[in-house]
Amino acid sequence: MSHPQSVFSQSTFGGKTLLSIRRDTIQKTSIHTQLEQLKVTGRYDCFKLKWHPVYDDHAMWPVPFHLFWDSDIAKWIEAACYWLQENYDKEIDKAVQELVDMIRSAQHEDGYLNVHYTVVEPDKRWTNVKDMHELYNAGHMLEAALAHKSFYKNDLLMEPILKYINHIDKTFGPKKGQRHGYPGHPEIELALFRLYGSTGSQSAYNLARYFLEERGNPKGQDGKHYYDWETEQRRDNFWARPDSYPEHRSYWVNQAHLPILEQKTIEGHSVRAVYLLVAVADLVLTHQMTDQKLSAPKEWTETLSRLWDNMVDQKMYLTGGIGSIKQWEGFTVDHYLPQGTDEGGCYSETCASVAVMMLAERLLHLDLDGRYGDIMELSLYNVVMTAMSLDGKEFTYVNQLASSDEDKSVRYDWFWCACCPPNLARLYGSLAGYLWDYGVQDARAYVNVHLYTTAKVTFEADGKTVVLEQISNWPLDGKVDFQLSAPDIQTTIRLRLPAWARGHYTLTPNPDSEQVNVSKGYITLSPAYVSANSFFTLEIGNFEPRYLSPHPHTNQRTLTLARGPIVYCAEDVDNPWETNHFKDTIIRRDSPVTEEKRVSEQTGEEYIVLKSKCWQRSLKDWEAKPRGEDPEMDAADQLVGEERAIVFVPYYFRANRGGNGHMRVGLLKG
Amino acid sequence: MSHPQSVFSQSTFGGKTLLSIRRDTIQKTSIHTQLEQLKVTGRYDCFKLKWHPVYDDHAMWPVPFHLFWDSDIAKWIEAACYWLQENYDKEIDKAVQELVDMIRSAQHEDGYLNVHYTVVEPDKRWTNVKDMHELYNAGHMLEAALAHKSFYKNDLLMEPILKYINHIDKTFGPKKGQRHGYPGHPEIELALFRLYGSTGSQSAYNLARYFLEERGNPKGQDGKHYYDWETEQRRDNFWARPDSYPEHRSYWVNQAHLPILEQKTIEGHSVRAVYLLVAVADLVLTHQMTDQKLSAPKEWTETLSRLWDNMVDQKMYLTGGIGSIKQWEGFTVDHYLPQGTDEGGCYSETCASVAVMMLAERLLHLDLDGRYGDIMELSLYNVVMTAMSLDGKEFTYVNQLASSDEDKSVRYDWFWCACCPPNLARLYGSLAGYLWDYGVQDARAYVNVHLYTTAKVTFEADGKTVVLEQISNWPLDGKVDFQLSAPDIQTTIRLRLPAWARGHYTLTPNPDSEQVNVSKGYITLSPAYVSANSFFTLEIGNFEPRYLSPHPHTNQRTLTLARGPIVYCAEDVDNPWETNHFKDTIIRRDSPVTEEKRVSEQTGEEYIVLKSKCWQRSLKDWEAKPRGEDPEMDAADQLVGEERAIVFVPYYFRANRGGNGHMRVGLLKG
Repeated sequence: MSHPQSVFSQSTFGGKTLLSIRRDTIQKTSIHTQLEQLKVTGRYDCFKLKWHPVYDDHAMWPVPFHLFWDSDIAKWIEAACYWLQENYDKEIDKAVQELVDMIRSAQHEDGYLNVHYTVVEPDKRWTNVKDMHELYNAGHMLEAALAHKSFYKNDLLMEPILKYINHIDKTFGPKKGQRHGYPGHPEIELALFRLYGSTGSQSAYNLARYFLEERGNPKGQDGKHYYDWETEQRRDNFWARPDSYPEHRSYWVNQAHLPILEQKTIEGHSVRAVYLLVAVADLVLTHQMTDQKLSAPKEWTETLSRLWDNMVDQKMYLTGGIGSIKQWEGFTVDHYLPQGTDEGGCYSETCASVAVMMLAERLLHLDLDGRYGDIMELSLYNVVMTAMSLDGKEFTYVNQLASSDEDKSVRYDWFWCACCPPNLARLYGSLAGYLWDYGVQDARAYVNVHLYTTAKVTFEADGKTVVLEQISNWPLDGKVDFQLSAPDIQTTIRLRLPAWARGHYTLTPNPDSEQVNVSKGYITLSPAYVSANSFFTLEIGNFEPRYLSPHPHTNQRTLTLARGPIVYCAEDVDNPWETNHFKDTIIRRDSPVTEEKRVSEQTGEEYIVLKSKCWQRSLKDWEAKPRGEDPEMDAADQLVGEERAIVFVPYYFRANRGGNGHMRVGLLKG
Repeated sequence: MSHPQSVFSQSTFGGKTLLSIRRDTIQKTSIHTQLEQLKVTGRYDCFKLKWHPVYDDHAMWPVPFHLFWDSDIAKWIEAACYWLQENYDKEIDKAVQELVDMIRSAQHEDGYLNVHYTVVEPDKRWTNVKDMHELYNAGHMLEAALAHKSFYKNDLLMEPILKYINHIDKTFGPKKGQRHGYPGHPEIELALFRLYGSTGSQSAYNLARYFLEERGNPKGQDGKHYYDWETEQRRDNFWARPDSYPEHRSYWVNQAHLPILEQKTIEGHSVRAVYLLVAVADLVLTHQMTDQKLSAPKEWTETLSRLWDNMVDQKMYLTGGIGSIKQWEGFTVDHYLPQGTDEGGCYSETCASVAVMMLAERLLHLDLDGRYGDIMELSLYNVVMTAMSLDGKEFTYVNQLASSDEDKSVRYDWFWCACCPPNLARLYGSLAGYLWDYGVQDARAYVNVHLYTTAKVTFEADGKTVVLEQISNWPLDGKVDFQLSAPDIQTTIRLRLPAWARGHYTLTPNPDSEQVNVSKGYITLSPAYVSANSFFTLEIGNFEPRYLSPHPHTNQRTLTLARGPIVYCAEDVDNPWETNHFKDTIIRRDSPVTEEKRVSEQTGEEYIVLKSKCWQRSLKDWEAKPRGEDPEMDAADQLVGEERAIVFVPYYFRANRGGNGHMRVGLLKG
């Protein structure tokens, strides 16, 4: 069972594509500026276990501001090790080694390893797994250890972490005397499956599976829901709760309101929900690909499918972003997808889309369906990519589809809760693992290509070396050249045909009909075609700008411009007439849209702007009328407003060139 | 300073108008069925101070289910006394007298009088004025006492209540040793102003003013916000909070986040917010009409105006309903006005609209502006009136503009929190007080007519008797006949011209131009016109059905049918083809609309249905397309859907004739 974070090193990026330019920026800049942030904020030294002034800040309860520091360090180490694998960097190497030394020195005799519960509340370990992120931090430490071992080929980090995992394994489980709990923020489950995938550790598999099967048990501990039980043990008031819980016992925020198999809809904190589903996908994959047996495999598969469908069909923005409510950073009722704060919400956290990519990648192993590949690409280019500035020094946590006076379209160099920046760094660091999956089936090699760019993969199949290279300028245009070298082994290539292309593609050389087969968004090139054409070209069509609208039940009667996989937005920097976040800007589907290729002064990358016309609605007349009289009533329903030229840029490009932070993805449909 | 609750008895309703039919129903039925509910639920006997099983129910914290029982009794007594004044009823009289006996017997030596803190937590008086409704209950008791005294002409209820108010006055205030607090649920302030208006009690005025001026003081008690201070005194966790507070210290729910004069927008629980503003209006009125001096009269007037404007222009539904969020039963960001639960909210509590009527009535004394009169009428006919069934036995608490599977359009015979039914009963009981205000100014009599119906007012002006009678079939048509008898005194009549009439009205006999004057939505008939025409007729025009749309920034691109002051809705009982709450029903402004007069089998009242056509949108095609492709794209933006006939009924008429509870006010605009 391979994970993208372990196989990415079999691929290399090349050329000057959008992905390779972003990756260069992270390697050259972000990984260093993030290290600097770890240092100036106190995180870097936290495993020295000294008191930091922020530990005295009790403005937030029960979660203190430093609670996630262990994970910030861990995610940065994980990212650093991926990048070191690609390009050695002395400063980064030194920092990783120093951090590992500090982590080792912070471990307790019994294996326990957590900054907060060592320095601040040493007598309260495991008293609040719902909110206090001990297991979440442990999960990220485990992922860091896997990346560390893979680069350093030593156990300096893995050894203490395995000791910690062993401690956790003794603490949690079904036996008498063990805590029948599970993390309030899922993460460790997917990390444990990665450990199992990497080492075959049966105890890692068992613990991950326990966390999944026990979750939401209404009578798990002494006849009570575990979170009720631990609240009682702490003698906390049941009505005392972090600000992220709208009501008491809102355990749906943690996906613990019901056992997972009984959950009909995806609920709560979006990062938690999707990390949890990544682990569920690994549980199902493990069942299908190894001799690990599940008691209800069909139910787990159906649950995975049901919750994915609910997320994508009812609770996902056109950008691929998820989560509309700020308070619990998550999901709410179906089709509730306002674009910004002044419309009632919109969160679309960066980490949530990183999680969606991880989940889509897992699902593609279970079921090769373009539905998953399309969403993976959508999330990558539109949420993950919009979350970092062109210079690699600033980030977003929240990715709303429209700005407002309260929440402008801007980036920040860091966050007190700093999950997103290092999450981006590790995702881009292991991105090659998401491009394709491959292997051997029935003595034939296969490569399923999910993402197009310029890259090359080399792998062994039945003792033969297979090399597949793709060269393209994706996502600017749809032409992708492939070159396969697979001597002495029959090879099948499957290429994703995005749904938005609506069947428009050409394959050169043109295959005979029996050489190819299109199913569920992938075209399969038979070994016959591939062996006859080691160089072939796929050209995806329908790259003309097109209009998107959200589901009619969102009550968003808006149009959004898209081109290929890229979703566009309007910014005031290009449209300086705009002063109210494009709230009153109307566009029409029948207006001509023209393309213009530009080059970024900051990165040298090409990007395509779209130009069209729009109308600026004035509400003065409307507001002067009797209450509720229709604004367009006097104009025989004709479009009212002043015509203007409007320029759109890719949403991933926003907030890089000054302006006043006014931006919108979906504009009123005229 | 007169209040509608004290002057209503100078007016009588007549004829068979919509208002008089509803009033008859309440008098004959509701006041009795509500008494029955008080009895079967245990409320009736609660002042006997015995234990009731519901007192053991701790499912809600800190507020127990019985916390408002005192106020339920009080509001019913208040209502009963209004109705007794109009029509004596032996059963009701007996019940009021029994209740008063029980209330008297429940009072403590020191004047304290509250069921919960006598029976359940006798040692915790005044420890949580934010949440525990002691002052709210006291306010309603005071209003009951005022009504009781007015009918019974004795002090049997007033005496213990004044003793209680005196106790409160000693407990709360600016002096050392007094609590510098104020109610979490405003109500007592407006009751105290009524007491002042009725008796001139200076201590009542002072206490009401103290509650208003102290509210939101960040350093009121020992240098702390009072609600922080009392939380500390109780040693409660600051993060423990009722489910109605989304975050800790969400004191905006109570309008206590800032001193009132610093509040820029109307926030929080909508009933609390508007009850509070009623008291602010009384504070300003008192300043203007008596010798009570205010330190910042301009600021109080501006605050009143600013918060009214924000409520009406940004936070009010087309029906006049307020409050879009269920959790805190209140307001949120400007223009966030979804129609139903599955769109993200809609509350529109009945009591909140009763409060809006009270506030509008007060404001009309301060500033005779049709803006206030129009909203008073809108709230009456569309929220207050929709809140009761035609048979007077069932009520609504929440008045959403669209049903959903979760919240269908239905009524209930009672609520555990039963504020709304008796609030309706007392509002209708004192409704004559809202029709008009009148008096003497510069030795001339005046009557300002706010609401049209069939009714007569008789009052003394400079020792002369003035009688004004109006006869109409409002709101079914716009013709109102007036007959004035005002011998020996010059009289000015002002009549509201609703904004929706758009200036269409005729006055018969036709006046000379110097005899009338139109300003801010009222036409003033000079004494010259009035004395020459003791019988005159106003006919308001523009009664044809018209379309309304909510503010464009609500993102609700919907059309709503209205006729005169009445807002319409579609129900599945008239349109049995509908099975999804009219979510996909499209109407067009250019479709002909016809009227049909019908007679209700239940009440014999006439009502007018509107008939038009609509289109049923199918989403099957859309959902089969690639993600986000526009549903109308292939149809050249033509209306897509099956054409059908559709019938609309007044929103006040909904949920009376069976059906499946599918209903919608705003339909998609095609």
